[in-house]
Amino acid sequence: AAFNGESEASGGTARAQITLKYDEKSKQFAIRIGQLRGLSALSPQLGRKVNFRVAILPCPESSACLFRTRPLDAAADTLVFNEAFWVSMSYPALHQKTLRVDLCASDTSHPEECLGGAQISLAEICRSGESFTRWYNLLSSQDLGRLSRK
Amino acid sequence: AAFNGESEASGGTARAQITLKYDEKSKQFAIRIGQLRGLSALSPQLGRKVNFRVAILPCPESSACLFRTRPLDAAADTLVFNEAFWVSMSYPALHQKTLRVDLCASDTSHPEECLGGAQISLAEICRSGESFTRWYNLLSSQDLGRLSRK
Repeated sequence: AAFNGESEASGGTARAQITLKYDEKSKQFAIRIGQLRGLSALSPQLGRKVNFRVAILPCPESSACLFRTRPLDAAADTLVFNEAFWVSMSYPALHQKTLRVDLCASDTSHPEECLGGAQISLAEICRSGESFTRWYNLLSSQDLGRLSRK
Repeated sequence: AAFNGESEASGGTARAQITLKYDEKSKQFAIRIGQLRGLSALSPQLGRKVNFRVAILPCPESSACLFRTRPLDAAADTLVFNEAFWVSMSYPALHQKTLRVDLCASDTSHPEECLGGAQISLAEICRSGESFTRWYNLLSSQDLGRLSRK
């Protein structure tokens, strides 16, 4: 069969653990960035730090919809962030949004460069107030870029 | 509350109806593009046709992982595609993939230009053989592009 070389055990994919929760009473949407696994799949350069950039899009000019975790040394394949962000938004408005979660690298002499990311449609997110946690594959910017040339 | 102007009724979001199914027995992954709603939110130019470009990434050189629906006239806000694509892949391999579904516009004098898209992590897709259908918000390329300049 095709792709046999890419078993789960090979660790060929970077994944982010993300928890989402919408509380209808407080009209707050919470995004928690838990862990990153498989960082090496995104080939960060030595000595750089990495952080997650979290955006709720589209974003009206007047609103806060862009957040960043603290940067961590890209020294291990698994990094624990455990940072949460809250946004005030009505349920119908949230329902029309898309969450982008990108892993970005930076150092003192380079601007932020995003290595890969996940994109999560919030069209069918539950309004119950229960949180749900999932692992999302991070598609590398390189692989995505190759697509536009096909 | 913020975002009050953007109620669900305003139809401000383009959405694609996508059905996914993995059959462990046949080791086939099926992607069905059903309908598109809210095309006007992606501002297609008059006279152009639109099609969905479906990609399973990352894509080894040797594999078929890029598909396109037939192009339809961008003449209505709702377009029915109802096209399905099948890919042979082991479950562990699929588990590491990300599905990109982009709505692209083209005409005889312009190359394909993608107006917006959804990205679906297949890290937690079910192997049961049951199909599941969901509506996914299509994030416009414009809104995504603005993000990289912040």
